Amino acid sequence: MHQDMIIRITKYDRILRKLKSIGLERVFANNIGDAVGVTASIVRKDFSLLNIIGQKRGGYDINKLITSLDHILGKDGSQKAAVVGCGRIGSALLRYNGFESDGIKIVAGFDTNTRICEESDCPVPIYSMEKIKEVIEREQIKLAIIAVPEQTAQDVFTRLLDSGVRGFLNFTQAGLRAPKPFDTLGNRPGEHVVVHNVNIGLELEQIVYELNMADKQLLK
Amino acid sequence: MHQDMIIRITKYDRILRKLKSIGLERVFANNIGDAVGVTASIVRKDFSLLNIIGQKRGGYDINKLITSLDHILGKDGSQKAAVVGCGRIGSALLRYNGFESDGIKIVAGFDTNTRICEESDCPVPIYSMEKIKEVIEREQIKLAIIAVPEQTAQDVFTRLLDSGVRGFLNFTQAGLRAPKPFDTLGNRPGEHVVVHNVNIGLELEQIVYELNMADKQLLK
Repeated sequence: MHQDMIIRITKYDRILRKLKSIGLERVFANNIGDAVGVTASIVRKDFSLLNIIGQKRGGYDINKLITSLDHILGKDGSQKAAVVGCGRIGSALLRYNGFESDGIKIVAGFDTNTRICEESDCPVPIYSMEKIKEVIEREQIKLAIIAVPEQTAQDVFTRLLDSGVRGFLNFTQAGLRAPKPFDTLGNRPGEHVVVHNVNIGLELEQIVYELNMADKQLLK
Repeated sequence: MHQDMIIRITKYDRILRKLKSIGLERVFANNIGDAVGVTASIVRKDFSLLNIIGQKRGGYDINKLITSLDHILGKDGSQKAAVVGCGRIGSALLRYNGFESDGIKIVAGFDTNTRICEESDCPVPIYSMEKIKEVIEREQIKLAIIAVPEQTAQDVFTRLLDSGVRGFLNFTQAGLRAPKPFDTLGNRPGEHVVVHNVNIGLELEQIVYELNMADKQLLK
């Protein structure tokens, strides 16, 4: 499935929850399209590709639609995640309580300083880096947010892979590479690894660049 | 210029600074390609498109290369930025000192609670939301990071646009829409607006989805 379509489906799913919370029971492709910013025909095409069928003139049953999309998005159960590196960004993410509605539950933090959370109240336990394998395996955590200093990111990534984590959100500038026995794509036979990068400095640089290009009238 | 190429250029620029700090004076397309994870021929092609010419066998002069890329990236001077909304994420960004090497200087924060920074030391002044227009215009800030609660994001966005901000990094889940007198792309005649979105919950959802699809062997 194309990345753009995945993004749209996650957006549909969110919008539907909001509409449901307002009291709607049925929705039309036009409602969803307006809220997400795409045409109704794109919405209908996406649903059709996913074998989700509405009723003529009756639109879609909102509960059934949410159940279908949740299943497609793998949100049937909530996914456990760990934050590795509890500095400024890591600590902010640990305390952010908006992920649960996305089916993501942060259950552990790791840092070289396990007392980092004693100063203020901490919603999850903070373990030392030495406990990564033990805790990740025990809690069966498959998802990790890496927010350590760049120079230790590769080492942390390797240890998390070795502990069974398969999904990574990388907040460092390091380009993470899976070591052996993973292949170049980071896969063991039958296993897959997904790494997404969030690089705030790079985003800001790109915005400046795009504005400069626009000023120079070079942007098409 | 294609978005992928912009991303590569910003990566080249970073790698070159690192190599320079190690003491290198000349670099080859192969060096850069290895560090960034692309082939040397892509590096050479990018440079050729940018009219950057190396010497046969001698590679590229690292200082000249950085100067050229900085100019292309609009990093000749440093860009002033503001953080609007100084909650957990906003505060972490305010205190992050890694942007300066990217030519980005955060010079102001805005929050409904201007005393938010009194508890711990704050690197920049925090102003009340009412001062947005005054401060943004006085400091000639063109770049803003929006980290307010979702329900106030659109209002803040409108006020920032009205104050002259043209580049936005949006950390909220709100889909920001430019109001009149901007056109649907958010432009006044001769002006351009660039909005990038960082949605951490959405990123995590997508990672879970991609892993699920991989498990089901549906991912091509």
